[in-house]
Amino acid sequence: MLKVEKHYFTFGASPHEQKLESGLTLGPVTIAYETFGNLNLNKDNAILICHAFTGDSHVAGVYEDDPPETPPGWWNFMVGPGKGIDTDRYFVICCNILGSCVGSTGPSSINPATNKPYGLDFPMVTIGDMVDAQKKVLDSLGITSLHSVIGGSIGGMQVLEWCVRYPGMVRSAIPIATTMRHSALAIAFNEVARQAIMADPKWNKGDYYHGSGPELGLAVARMVGHVTYLSDEAMRRKFGRKLQDKEDFSFNFGGDFQVESYLRYQGAKFVKRFDANSVLYITKAADYFDLTDKVNTEESLHDLSGSRSKFLVISYTSDWLYPTYQARELIQALKRTGQDVSFCEIEADCGHDAFLIQDNRLTKLIKGFLNGLTSG
Amino acid sequence: MLKVEKHYFTFGASPHEQKLESGLTLGPVTIAYETFGNLNLNKDNAILICHAFTGDSHVAGVYEDDPPETPPGWWNFMVGPGKGIDTDRYFVICCNILGSCVGSTGPSSINPATNKPYGLDFPMVTIGDMVDAQKKVLDSLGITSLHSVIGGSIGGMQVLEWCVRYPGMVRSAIPIATTMRHSALAIAFNEVARQAIMADPKWNKGDYYHGSGPELGLAVARMVGHVTYLSDEAMRRKFGRKLQDKEDFSFNFGGDFQVESYLRYQGAKFVKRFDANSVLYITKAADYFDLTDKVNTEESLHDLSGSRSKFLVISYTSDWLYPTYQARELIQALKRTGQDVSFCEIEADCGHDAFLIQDNRLTKLIKGFLNGLTSG
Repeated sequence: MLKVEKHYFTFGASPHEQKLESGLTLGPVTIAYETFGNLNLNKDNAILICHAFTGDSHVAGVYEDDPPETPPGWWNFMVGPGKGIDTDRYFVICCNILGSCVGSTGPSSINPATNKPYGLDFPMVTIGDMVDAQKKVLDSLGITSLHSVIGGSIGGMQVLEWCVRYPGMVRSAIPIATTMRHSALAIAFNEVARQAIMADPKWNKGDYYHGSGPELGLAVARMVGHVTYLSDEAMRRKFGRKLQDKEDFSFNFGGDFQVESYLRYQGAKFVKRFDANSVLYITKAADYFDLTDKVNTEESLHDLSGSRSKFLVISYTSDWLYPTYQARELIQALKRTGQDVSFCEIEADCGHDAFLIQDNRLTKLIKGFLNGLTSG
Repeated sequence: MLKVEKHYFTFGASPHEQKLESGLTLGPVTIAYETFGNLNLNKDNAILICHAFTGDSHVAGVYEDDPPETPPGWWNFMVGPGKGIDTDRYFVICCNILGSCVGSTGPSSINPATNKPYGLDFPMVTIGDMVDAQKKVLDSLGITSLHSVIGGSIGGMQVLEWCVRYPGMVRSAIPIATTMRHSALAIAFNEVARQAIMADPKWNKGDYYHGSGPELGLAVARMVGHVTYLSDEAMRRKFGRKLQDKEDFSFNFGGDFQVESYLRYQGAKFVKRFDANSVLYITKAADYFDLTDKVNTEESLHDLSGSRSKFLVISYTSDWLYPTYQARELIQALKRTGQDVSFCEIEADCGHDAFLIQDNRLTKLIKGFLNGLTSG
């Protein structure tokens, strides 16, 4: 098993705070990141992986001090020696996003101005701000050119934002199961999740770090999210109307169906590992995401004309959060600015989360694209 | 404007309680209902309309004592003199469903055993139990044969259940935007709504009628529901990424987008008119709904072979709660038991709630079907 180490990079101490899209500043900022494989002498074999909403920097492998049976990182089937993203060949980096709670600075971090957790005093961050923070980590490693930037869902939004903000650095980009502009439907689900958290009195306007937090509200928020990551087909196949440990209906509210138990389990598991305020901030960053030119929203991509990246856009047939028509809109917009774009829609019934599920088609697609760039 | 009166029929006083599918009994039971038009001498021109989840018996028109500008009932475009369901020709009845809170007995009603609201002491009721209670109302009116039973969503489930329980009474049936078996996806959304309510400390295990109830949790539950009643297309058309009374992003959690304001408004409006426990009971009834034979789930409809109804099944292209493939499954099951079935899928982008939105195609379809039966 690939052994990995978690690193931390801190920047932006006063008076060099990170300037945010909102106009506010933030600092110091710590970004947790992990690396896999070795950076070559030219420092040009680096691949940046951008994680999704509640992901983290732990893409693959296990930590040196992990007990046996610890499950590996979230994209272990994709990243490692000889795998789709081959760590024998590439130096892979993944940063925990700004605003999260798995090592990087976010609302649960200590606010140096008060010596207490930020809570809602944490400034709103955008996908662009997340990318800017990642750029600082790459600067610290002396990396000025990326073989590729790869990510799914809001990781894919970061991929696109990378191409806009640092076009000269990105030689190729693989946005997966994502969109160039968060839709009303996606905003609606995020807003429901936020309201579920904020409706919990234990949320206490974000100031709950001294005691137990809004666990019930956070669990409901996660349940909403989970339904959107799946699909009608997958839920039909996986759960149907099967009862959980029962011969017949209970005729009470304890839960009858396997799908109910599954959602409750996902909700309960999530509250142990994730911060409720981070859910608020990250969902908001996703909702704000809109790469289209504000003047001419249907036509062109904001500021992508400087990009010289090769794009591989990937979508899934059963993803109803970011459906294939949105990938097609992205492709059209990319082509209008003269980009080199390949596209693949993968037939899969597992919904938005399909890219997190082992699938040799995805592995081969990414491997072929990355290696084709090298030889080209 | 059609003037209507609300009636109440009470039955099931001890020892004649209603026997429920759970094995428990309930009594006395009051059912609120409204009638439109006149019952003919043969008492064979009656049409029963079954309302959806949070609907009520007030299908059309206004009450005698309504102030001016009061909006009419929920299917006013469909029901009235000369309309799709023509009250000059038919005697239209609609009952508030058992378990609801708009006049019929439900968890907010007084439990005669304690002289307090039932709360969670209210027994679980099923779609079949709702139909049995409606049957008592029809008995009281001397109606033994229905020209048609019509309803959308869980109203459509009642339509199907009517055909199963009282096949000799139902001459025709129009199930709209419905399913013969609640799917895992639909159960999942209902479970999220229930958990949102039950997560609110003011829910207090259903015992909240002495003070303010779980308004925040109920609002979140309604927001979840509302997203499922719409569609990606409709939300894109209606809201897109339009901001609410703003020039630019607020960079706070007060709400930026119109779709957020819309959902918050729907949530806040709902808590003023509906009981949280009724949401729990009615969603559970929908989740339990499964007309398929338990032994051979894919093949046949439970006990519909006795039906001699003519069916008009209607679905909508953008309904992702009960998509057209589920209407097709229903039709196949109906045909296997030898039923006379017509089917129409209506092209509309407004999602599950399309049947509640004025549309001449639906009106003409229903009118033609009903009048064709009369002349046939």
